[in-house]
Amino acid sequence: MERADGRRPDEPRPVSITPGFLPHAEGSALIEAGSTHVIAAASVASGVPRWLRGSGRGWVTAEYGMLPRSTTERTAREARVGRQSGRSLEIQRLIGRSLRAVADLEALGERTVTVDCDVLRADGGTRTAAITAGYVALRLAFEKLASEGTIASVPVREAVAAISVGVVGDALLLDLTYEEDSAADTDLNVVMTESSGFVEVQGTAERRPFTRDQLEAMLSLAESGIALLLAEQERALRTAEKGTS
Amino acid sequence: MERADGRRPDEPRPVSITPGFLPHAEGSALIEAGSTHVIAAASVASGVPRWLRGSGRGWVTAEYGMLPRSTTERTAREARVGRQSGRSLEIQRLIGRSLRAVADLEALGERTVTVDCDVLRADGGTRTAAITAGYVALRLAFEKLASEGTIASVPVREAVAAISVGVVGDALLLDLTYEEDSAADTDLNVVMTESSGFVEVQGTAERRPFTRDQLEAMLSLAESGIALLLAEQERALRTAEKGTS
Amino acid sequence: MERADGRRPDEPRPVSITPGFLPHAEGSALIEAGSTHVIAAASVASGVPRWLRGSGRGWVTAEYGMLPRSTTERTAREARVGRQSGRSLEIQRLIGRSLRAVADLEALGERTVTVDCDVLRADGGTRTAAITAGYVALRLAFEKLASEGTIASVPVREAVAAISVGVVGDALLLDLTYEEDSAADTDLNVVMTESSGFVEVQGTAERRPFTRDQLEAMLSLAESGIALLLAEQERALRTAEKGTS
Amino acid sequence: MERADGRRPDEPRPVSITPGFLPHAEGSALIEAGSTHVIAAASVASGVPRWLRGSGRGWVTAEYGMLPRSTTERTAREARVGRQSGRSLEIQRLIGRSLRAVADLEALGERTVTVDCDVLRADGGTRTAAITAGYVALRLAFEKLASEGTIASVPVREAVAAISVGVVGDALLLDLTYEEDSAADTDLNVVMTESSGFVEVQGTAERRPFTRDQLEAMLSLAESGIALLLAEQERALRTAEKGTS
Amino acid sequence: MERADGRRPDEPRPVSITPGFLPHAEGSALIEAGSTHVIAAASVASGVPRWLRGSGRGWVTAEYGMLPRSTTERTAREARVGRQSGRSLEIQRLIGRSLRAVADLEALGERTVTVDCDVLRADGGTRTAAITAGYVALRLAFEKLASEGTIASVPVREAVAAISVGVVGDALLLDLTYEEDSAADTDLNVVMTESSGFVEVQGTAERRPFTRDQLEAMLSLAESGIALLLAEQERALRTAEKGTS
Amino acid sequence: MERADGRRPDEPRPVSITPGFLPHAEGSALIEAGSTHVIAAASVASGVPRWLRGSGRGWVTAEYGMLPRSTTERTAREARVGRQSGRSLEIQRLIGRSLRAVADLEALGERTVTVDCDVLRADGGTRTAAITAGYVALRLAFEKLASEGTIASVPVREAVAAISVGVVGDALLLDLTYEEDSAADTDLNVVMTESSGFVEVQGTAERRPFTRDQLEAMLSLAESGIALLLAEQERALRTAEKGTS
Repeated sequence: MERADGRRPDEPRPVSITPGFLPHAEGSALIEAGSTHVIAAASVASGVPRWLRGSGRGWVTAEYGMLPRSTTERTAREARVGRQSGRSLEIQRLIGRSLRAVADLEALGERTVTVDCDVLRADGGTRTAAITAGYVALRLAFEKLASEGTIASVPVREAVAAISVGVVGDALLLDLTYEEDSAADTDLNVVMTESSGFVEVQGTAERRPFTRDQLEAMLSLAESGIALLLAEQERALRTAEKGTS
Repeated sequence: MERADGRRPDEPRPVSITPGFLPHAEGSALIEAGSTHVIAAASVASGVPRWLRGSGRGWVTAEYGMLPRSTTERTAREARVGRQSGRSLEIQRLIGRSLRAVADLEALGERTVTVDCDVLRADGGTRTAAITAGYVALRLAFEKLASEGTIASVPVREAVAAISVGVVGDALLLDLTYEEDSAADTDLNVVMTESSGFVEVQGTAERRPFTRDQLEAMLSLAESGIALLLAEQERALRTAEKGTS
Repeated sequence: MERADGRRPDEPRPVSITPGFLPHAEGSALIEAGSTHVIAAASVASGVPRWLRGSGRGWVTAEYGMLPRSTTERTAREARVGRQSGRSLEIQRLIGRSLRAVADLEALGERTVTVDCDVLRADGGTRTAAITAGYVALRLAFEKLASEGTIASVPVREAVAAISVGVVGDALLLDLTYEEDSAADTDLNVVMTESSGFVEVQGTAERRPFTRDQLEAMLSLAESGIALLLAEQERALRTAEKGTS
Repeated sequence: MERADGRRPDEPRPVSITPGFLPHAEGSALIEAGSTHVIAAASVASGVPRWLRGSGRGWVTAEYGMLPRSTTERTAREARVGRQSGRSLEIQRLIGRSLRAVADLEALGERTVTVDCDVLRADGGTRTAAITAGYVALRLAFEKLASEGTIASVPVREAVAAISVGVVGDALLLDLTYEEDSAADTDLNVVMTESSGFVEVQGTAERRPFTRDQLEAMLSLAESGIALLLAEQERALRTAEKGTS
Repeated sequence: MERADGRRPDEPRPVSITPGFLPHAEGSALIEAGSTHVIAAASVASGVPRWLRGSGRGWVTAEYGMLPRSTTERTAREARVGRQSGRSLEIQRLIGRSLRAVADLEALGERTVTVDCDVLRADGGTRTAAITAGYVALRLAFEKLASEGTIASVPVREAVAAISVGVVGDALLLDLTYEEDSAADTDLNVVMTESSGFVEVQGTAERRPFTRDQLEAMLSLAESGIALLLAEQERALRTAEKGTS
Repeated sequence: MERADGRRPDEPRPVSITPGFLPHAEGSALIEAGSTHVIAAASVASGVPRWLRGSGRGWVTAEYGMLPRSTTERTAREARVGRQSGRSLEIQRLIGRSLRAVADLEALGERTVTVDCDVLRADGGTRTAAITAGYVALRLAFEKLASEGTIASVPVREAVAAISVGVVGDALLLDLTYEEDSAADTDLNVVMTESSGFVEVQGTAERRPFTRDQLEAMLSLAESGIALLLAEQERALRTAEKGTS
């Protein structure tokens, strides 16, 4: 199977993360994964949602949106429709869970970090790109809090990143473009940590059910892609450090 | 590990499906899985959403809701809040995808079937119970259409059912109650077909990331539970058949 | 005039009330009046609406909803529409007023009881069934508070129940089904207490105005039906008592 | 019992109806009943709601609102809250039903008349004033259609008007002010036609249940008040006729 | 250029302001400018929006609405649509800014005055009429607070009023009617104070851009019209004073 | 008066326009005016709003939004709040009017162009930047339609751009930053065409009213700034042309 952009089946798109893209935010990053470009910005506020008040624990949450013309056809502006779509809500819940899975909420204290993920250009994999960039934004915000002495140390246990894999015809493809995703029988999003732990595994048969063997192969493929993303996150964070030192 | 209700770790809750529970609906079923009780009702309408018009294909969709006092503490009524919660939207999208995965939408023709899943009592596993009952409701509605001659045959490829598995401490537990789910490190929902194909696999690390080995073991456990659910669906459908013959 | 279900004009539908139907609720009841089935669930919360704070008085309110497929044709889910319909709001205001009329809000103290009335199957008379079952749910919740010692006595002055009467052609019919209601010239809902006091009288000429004589006759008919409902409420409450003693 | 404004118990407030108050509307009227001032405006549009299309029948509906400062304390603007209150919806449904009861919808043909009732000043009885003025506005709009030859005759069967009665302490009072209404044990709204037929009877026990005897007496009192309102409607319509001849 | 109502190009419509039109409000006024009739009502509440709490400063805000049938064709009721239109929001923001520009918010103390502007009849210039009447309502409310001793003096620096000017063909016209406004190439709204200071200047080319010379001429025309409005405001305030002394 | 960024009072911020920033859009541009960065994207759809159907004329409209963390403090996401703010609606109405003023809607035919303006970073002047970039996006979309032969020529009469001026203390400053805007007594937004015609002039006294002389001086200052923006638009459009030739 030939991929339209010439990649091998197990080859992710070139990825680049620019830290500090939105200077007002406590932490931010622009991720460019092929033609999918997403901005993540972490905002820190004192206080936590009601159910955590008095617990001494913090909270990390995410919001997700797309510019109306990030997509091939214009997508209606959710602010005008009057509500976020089910898809947006589902994605932002996924991002929030993924980031909380590596955050040390006790060490954060009663603060809330909101990670806004906004898609400038969409070409498949916006939710996984948002998680990968969201981690960088969150980490930078945490480092800022720590360097200011607000918190004693950076409350992150390990890095987290995410990638998609799909079954298209007989082939397993890593890091699907929009076109590949539309043609896929199965779409699997995998969120993994530095220590190879799974945070989220979401496989969906869009057409034909998938087999246990296919699932196994997809998980292995995802793991190889995640390694590259973790390296790019690391590179971006070192760049940011130099920039501020 | 002792379970509060005395079950073995690999033992699902007793399940019972009552077909035809809402007599106005083209197809319906009440599922009682332990203390989780969900009504599914399939409504058939002519016509399809805009993007399918003229395609000759039908559509199957789902909506999900909870009675305010299905839960231990009262949950605010979504109609009063003014919108469905992110959780409800996410669940109804999952149910819809799961049912579409086994429906033959070409054979259905330009009709829309809406499967309403309403939770009377909630004790964990409401989304998986909704899928399991939803299949019965959908199948009964299809059988009604076929018996009336509206469609030539029952447009379903195979049965589909769903169950949850979790990692609680060191144990893997099948079919979590609400209390077990709250204590789980990982929660995995599995939607499978009669022919052992996966339709959805959604694993979430609520606390600690899970390993590849844990995932494997959870999938095997889920498969054993699904078999029992498929048998109960079959029994309910045969009962319904007798009732109408 | 022959009624489709063979009842005499002055004969209500068989009615059965099951107390404790939703075990999580402080008080609950399922009422089955012919093919109209409604669940009422009373939830107790500390605190009162703003305008009562500091008054020492409690509050009783109601919410009403229908399962989408409780009706012959599917009714759109209000949570999805984004608001409760005018009909639902009107009905829940009626239920709330009717229950407050027999509650001793001073004796309740600064607590709010919300009585959720959800229709499983609708065949006319859902608002009156909701009031009749709502009273049982409210009373059970009050008895629970009293038995726990939270309040000194059960803050209810007397029982309340409700029934409909209609003018269909030349006949006066008690306890209308949906079909009868659709054919009625006048529809009268009557809410009465044990001591034969009126709490609400709502008569509506759907087609032709009604006369004073017709109104008199309808009120008498309603009173006879209410007596039977009060007896069934009493029976259900005694059953519940035994169950918990 | 002395009334604050010196009226006898059976004496309604002075009432005055000004036809044609909003010149853009097909029909309109300002009613001043004591300190309650309401504008009614009837707007005619071609077409009917979906469920009437092709039936040859027309539709009459009403909408109700209050200026924020029509009330003693400012009431939040419903347009800003984002929805009409339950009270507003209930009232506009009542007005709509009352006007439809005297309209000949077949003779109207597939047209919709919306009667907007907006309260400038509120001092009790706004819903009954709205019905009384709404009839004049509707009739004027119908007369305009008939005089233009759009419809063959004025599609109204008879006049309709409305008034409130209450039980305050031991006294029965006709046409309650806001202050009297707040002190009332029972509040009864009666909508009657020229031929003494009841269109709506809505009695509510705000505090103590009311007896059959009290209901009888209230109905008689209402009927006497309605007669005066019908006369004022007639006077206003004759005035309007002169103005346009 | 002949104007449909016979006015000279530089002649405003006859204007009349009735103070105290809504007796419940702390201050109110009805303005009739030709066929444009607007009610303004000022309501005083203790407390201020969050961002002013503890500042010792007060707040003045405005809300704007139209009766559905104030317009030639019926306008949908915003409360039913579920939100205020962009036009309404824009206008009420303009009114609020204009009134705050002349209010002494420090002297007001932590109180909020809401000025509701509701259009009974619309024939162009409703926003400028609302500002002109809004000033009178606000001033009367302030005078009431001062006369009660709640505040030491009337916290207004000077009067403010507003008028529109337009370019219609080659002519400059003062105080446009709806029909003139619809035909205008440019529409300019000017808000000025007693001391000839500009508070708002909003010029919009509806068709052809306007020149600097046209802008100059329009500003001069507006100033002459404002003078007449300030005189009518003064007259109305003196009338109100007599009425209450 | 020293400006924080060292500019002279009559010096605008450095501005740069990147055409084609969102490749999916028919036309797009990123404008960077100092630290204010806005993306404009023009989307073409067939059909027009209802009131233009059958007129043969097209429509140009705009929508405006801000990324939540484009601002110093995080701004709530409007999609989550459930509606666009009054400020957003006011701004997008201004952008739409400004672009329509230079578009030849007859020549466009029954097509709708929506220009989405989304703020990445906000430092004052986002609405004027949006208009300036919006013109480039619109023009590029029109050129695409013309080059494809969909329309005969580019339906734009002349270029349009916008800038702000303010009175801060005694100084008049061109092109205000957020900090300057917050300190300004008066804020004037000017939208002008290539031929020096005014499309919009919106002056607001935030603190003290402004004089006629100040207005004159501000308009002259704005005109000088607009000239630079028109040149940068021209440069960007030539660049885009080369890119596609």
